Amino acid sequence: MKFTDYNKLSIGVIGLGYVGLPLLVELSKKLNCIGYDKNLIRLKEIKKFYDRNLQLKKNQLNKIKTSHSIYSLKQCNIYIVTVPTPINKKKLPDLSHLINATQDIGKILAKDNLVIYESTVFPGCTEDICGKILENISGLILNRDFYLGYSPERISPGDKKYSLKNTLKVISGSSSNTIDVLKFIYKGITKKIFVAKSIKIAEAAKVIENTQRDLNIAFINELSKIFSKLKINTYEVLRTAGTKWNFVKFYPGLVGGHCIGVDPYYLTYIAKKNKYNPKVILSGRYINDSMGSYVGEQIVNIIKNKNINTKNLKLLICGLTFKENCPDVRNSKVLDIIHFLNKKNIAVDVFDPWVSHFDDFEKKKYKFRLVKEIKKNYYSGAIFTVAHNKFKIINIDSFRKKLKINNFVYDLKNIFFKDKVDLTL
Amino acid sequence: MKFTDYNKLSIGVIGLGYVGLPLLVELSKKLNCIGYDKNLIRLKEIKKFYDRNLQLKKNQLNKIKTSHSIYSLKQCNIYIVTVPTPINKKKLPDLSHLINATQDIGKILAKDNLVIYESTVFPGCTEDICGKILENISGLILNRDFYLGYSPERISPGDKKYSLKNTLKVISGSSSNTIDVLKFIYKGITKKIFVAKSIKIAEAAKVIENTQRDLNIAFINELSKIFSKLKINTYEVLRTAGTKWNFVKFYPGLVGGHCIGVDPYYLTYIAKKNKYNPKVILSGRYINDSMGSYVGEQIVNIIKNKNINTKNLKLLICGLTFKENCPDVRNSKVLDIIHFLNKKNIAVDVFDPWVSHFDDFEKKKYKFRLVKEIKKNYYSGAIFTVAHNKFKIINIDSFRKKLKINNFVYDLKNIFFKDKVDLTL
Repeated sequence: MKFTDYNKLSIGVIGLGYVGLPLLVELSKKLNCIGYDKNLIRLKEIKKFYDRNLQLKKNQLNKIKTSHSIYSLKQCNIYIVTVPTPINKKKLPDLSHLINATQDIGKILAKDNLVIYESTVFPGCTEDICGKILENISGLILNRDFYLGYSPERISPGDKKYSLKNTLKVISGSSSNTIDVLKFIYKGITKKIFVAKSIKIAEAAKVIENTQRDLNIAFINELSKIFSKLKINTYEVLRTAGTKWNFVKFYPGLVGGHCIGVDPYYLTYIAKKNKYNPKVILSGRYINDSMGSYVGEQIVNIIKNKNINTKNLKLLICGLTFKENCPDVRNSKVLDIIHFLNKKNIAVDVFDPWVSHFDDFEKKKYKFRLVKEIKKNYYSGAIFTVAHNKFKIINIDSFRKKLKINNFVYDLKNIFFKDKVDLTL
Repeated sequence: MKFTDYNKLSIGVIGLGYVGLPLLVELSKKLNCIGYDKNLIRLKEIKKFYDRNLQLKKNQLNKIKTSHSIYSLKQCNIYIVTVPTPINKKKLPDLSHLINATQDIGKILAKDNLVIYESTVFPGCTEDICGKILENISGLILNRDFYLGYSPERISPGDKKYSLKNTLKVISGSSSNTIDVLKFIYKGITKKIFVAKSIKIAEAAKVIENTQRDLNIAFINELSKIFSKLKINTYEVLRTAGTKWNFVKFYPGLVGGHCIGVDPYYLTYIAKKNKYNPKVILSGRYINDSMGSYVGEQIVNIIKNKNINTKNLKLLICGLTFKENCPDVRNSKVLDIIHFLNKKNIAVDVFDPWVSHFDDFEKKKYKFRLVKEIKKNYYSGAIFTVAHNKFKIINIDSFRKKLKINNFVYDLKNIFFKDKVDLTL
């Protein structure tokens, strides 16, 4: 690579979501940058200094440049791709956004350009798939005319402690000069840099991080199922085991979101393609994917056990997001609980102070009302699904008085004292 | 419980293995104690101040009392059971030692006695199985005439950092007075006490500690299999992922020993008995149980790929114990590698500076010689299976010169620089 003058760097960020927008904001403080997104609504909101993900504030958004035309990025010599890499209905990698973005860049790619990917992918994807597309469309040759980098994003939505700025960033590149450029770009905006031995190793590291977390939560969810049958409180067992020096603290719960429930399928896809059928990883996925209906069954059981009148039965689900203290509802498994209750013809309202709209949901699939206040003497049960701080300060005794007299509270996340609720996970 | 005078406590420790002997040594410093074991050879060795497990030294063994007659413990008012709880060939809990010990205690149990279990069991075993046996044989009634305690052992063989003395000890009891007695007994010999909410919770906590570890190693072993197909170095991926704040560091390897490979089966046994078939836990067990033959296959592949002469082929396995820096060979999975190579008619020698005898092995099942020196120009390959400190100081260049010219080194535990060896796990 021939960037002799780093001051001439011009960066285009492709995809302005949870990863791209904070990145654009930070990079724009030091370098010449422009952001690009296909979503016009999102771009309009950003122009009005509004971030619907509530990650960034007005005074952070008024210093960035954005565009909805890829050709506005033609003068850039560095492209950073931060588009989503979800899964499709068959739980296979959906690379459509990644491929579209790569094709777009291919059209404007010039000699000595560098394309950096931050999206989560399976090992080999950046070089073997994206690299090939760029070569085919631009007519340029990788590592002669243009270069590749991979630096996995570690954005944790709603997490105040680990942000882009204070988290170590892994970088990797297709040549050693490329790595120097990546170092220069990222060292200004993150706490520390770690150079992975190769792009494939960086890709693999990213995908196993979330897979490890997914599997560990699946393990605890399986324990929760076993201990429920043995009538043992899971949280007490975890508190006790947690006194051992090498016990790792994970808790039962719903695994949703864009990463933890998705990334393992990227790994299992590439493993299967290479003739290895992952047993451990997929068993973890199976447990976590089925937790919504398990919780649904528990709800049906408690209604039966407490002899709750099922005529005009209304339940309140407190929490819709996939994670606490953020408005992120991507792949929220709370929807699976709603789906289960819908099938049983049980009416559900949802209360979540973080969620003001649910345009993005498949409205037809899920029947529920989003309520802003809790109607008195109306609900026979409440299910707390997310450990929002705003829920933790609830006085559960007063809360229960708002419910019908014969009621239940199912506290999935162990927010309240366990003798104040009927069930924890 | 009516122990008004703690000075009158007299403790009998049943089972003088890895758990019982160190416990007896520590307790004897403060209290009136006697140890009991059925194994006469072990008792004779202890009388001669020799501990074949190399946990305790002469000057620690010359102040304890032991006996091979349970009736010598008749004057005790506290019994602590530390017998092994292995699995049988069907991988089901083998409670024979536990039941025998309990029956023995039943014969001498007197009013106001307390029986404490330290052996790993499934939740419910102490009260529902052991408590019942004690009642039936003694004619006494639990929580009126005698009491139960459970305090899971956390002995880590070969571990200098976490010993009985400096590790937190979980205790639980069948009544609150019982807990006070347990507190008195253990507070003198351990760092800190944690009172579990019930015996069942303490039993569950113990069994999940090792199960979590087993599953996490299984996950890494599965990754190792996947990355081997993708030609990615697993240790480099782990080093990279390890830079994330919440990535938990586990490494691939053979899971043997008395605990980690065994305890999960106690949990799955009780789960299945309660009509839950554990998917995640058993998938982990499957992977870890099959690692020996996986390593065997890798060895066969490397012999083929390097065109190593298979006539008079001799391989050297370095490491026989289930864990580094201790002589413990219980359930060592290195034996599975040997078994695999035996079936392929490949001659195997084993070199392990920690192992001087292998009386306990099923000699008929495994064909190998235990060697004390490495014969020059004799072996075509060496497989390092255990990360003994004594192996880490080996100069691998000089070591390879002792092997035949066309040789391979398979470094399962990443002891040496990876470009100095042919394969890591």
